[in-house]
Amino acid sequence: MEIDYSDISVIGFDADDTLWVNETYFREAEEQFAELFRSYETPNKIDQELFKKELQNLPIYGYGVKGFMLSMIEMGLELTNYKVEPKLIEAIINIGKEMLNKPVELLPGIELVLKELSQKYRLILATKGDLLDQERKLEKSGLSGYFHHIEVLSEKQPENYARLLDHLDITPRSFLMVGNSLKSDILPLIELGAQAIHIPFHTTWEHEKVRDQDLKDHNYKTVSSADEILEFLM
Amino acid sequence: MEIDYSDISVIGFDADDTLWVNETYFREAEEQFAELFRSYETPNKIDQELFKKELQNLPIYGYGVKGFMLSMIEMGLELTNYKVEPKLIEAIINIGKEMLNKPVELLPGIELVLKELSQKYRLILATKGDLLDQERKLEKSGLSGYFHHIEVLSEKQPENYARLLDHLDITPRSFLMVGNSLKSDILPLIELGAQAIHIPFHTTWEHEKVRDQDLKDHNYKTVSSADEILEFLM
Repeated sequence: MEIDYSDISVIGFDADDTLWVNETYFREAEEQFAELFRSYETPNKIDQELFKKELQNLPIYGYGVKGFMLSMIEMGLELTNYKVEPKLIEAIINIGKEMLNKPVELLPGIELVLKELSQKYRLILATKGDLLDQERKLEKSGLSGYFHHIEVLSEKQPENYARLLDHLDITPRSFLMVGNSLKSDILPLIELGAQAIHIPFHTTWEHEKVRDQDLKDHNYKTVSSADEILEFLM
Repeated sequence: MEIDYSDISVIGFDADDTLWVNETYFREAEEQFAELFRSYETPNKIDQELFKKELQNLPIYGYGVKGFMLSMIEMGLELTNYKVEPKLIEAIINIGKEMLNKPVELLPGIELVLKELSQKYRLILATKGDLLDQERKLEKSGLSGYFHHIEVLSEKQPENYARLLDHLDITPRSFLMVGNSLKSDILPLIELGAQAIHIPFHTTWEHEKVRDQDLKDHNYKTVSSADEILEFLM
């Protein structure tokens, strides 16, 4: 059955891994981190432990690079049984600073898609992460002119989206969200009675993964790249 | 000359050190940090160097506890010429986590003031810092119900306020900002043609200090505690 988009007047876009590359940089950083501590543990074990540490710290640090840096430092202390070589701590800080200074790499075709859609729809950006980091990336991206509103959320639960839509006077049935994360960009919107289009990115953070059983009976479309959405929205 | 507040319909409040204690915790953390490294330098020198490091990192980390933690860690490496005892790094992380977990201590009379004002004015909260940390503090404070809108800004320059007012359809002449920082809460608003009331907090971060010459000819009121503003606003 075809999904009907005729009620849609506002389209929300996720940012990281929807507009531009992000998760790839975290994967690279994790590899660098594992390399730094290779004499203490296998890369696989280090990866698992770092992920656990990040989840443990998520409620206190939230999403973003700074919390990731602090989790890596803590992990470095623990992996070495508090005998870490200070240069390794410095190396972790440099990995993080490099992430924060990375140029923004737009995903293919994204600017054209926003340009086209902005002629027919009101576009908003709804992302989570560090406020400053997200603002900086948006500025570097050159895409901010396409968005009527930019919101950095501390979480992407249904209630966060509900507050945002309410604040902007948008009804769920007129709203469509586009993003790469089923957990953060798709399921919460479906739950609210809005629509959603999933554009998978080639890598997904473990924490954003969703079990198949959580997906069944949910009505959303999956496309393989952003330009495909023009076909049924324009 | 008395200032005329009759056009005011919206009042903005800063959060840290205006609604609740914040800077005090940074001062305490700085003292704890200086104590940890007392065998390397005098507390005074450590304080100065840490401040320099924070300023240097501000463009990349922004405001808030996580960036402060990362600056302390970097400083710990440098102060010890990269021979830091790992337990000291752990101690820094614990100082930061303790800051993030602190209960919120409201400033005297603040709840009553918001309650009264909210009957006549629309109140908004405009703060800077870590998004998650500010949201968490607001939630712990029990004050969120008084605010029609909450905005966490990455900077408090005139253009940030201009965007916020524009977004909320508020004219500068109907807006009054209340806060403890001349640099962040008072001067940018005066520059926009809005009004401002200064409530000094007993301690001010060096970076928020303003030279006397930047203050002259500026028309704003200073009060010594929040409840005084009820006298001329209600």
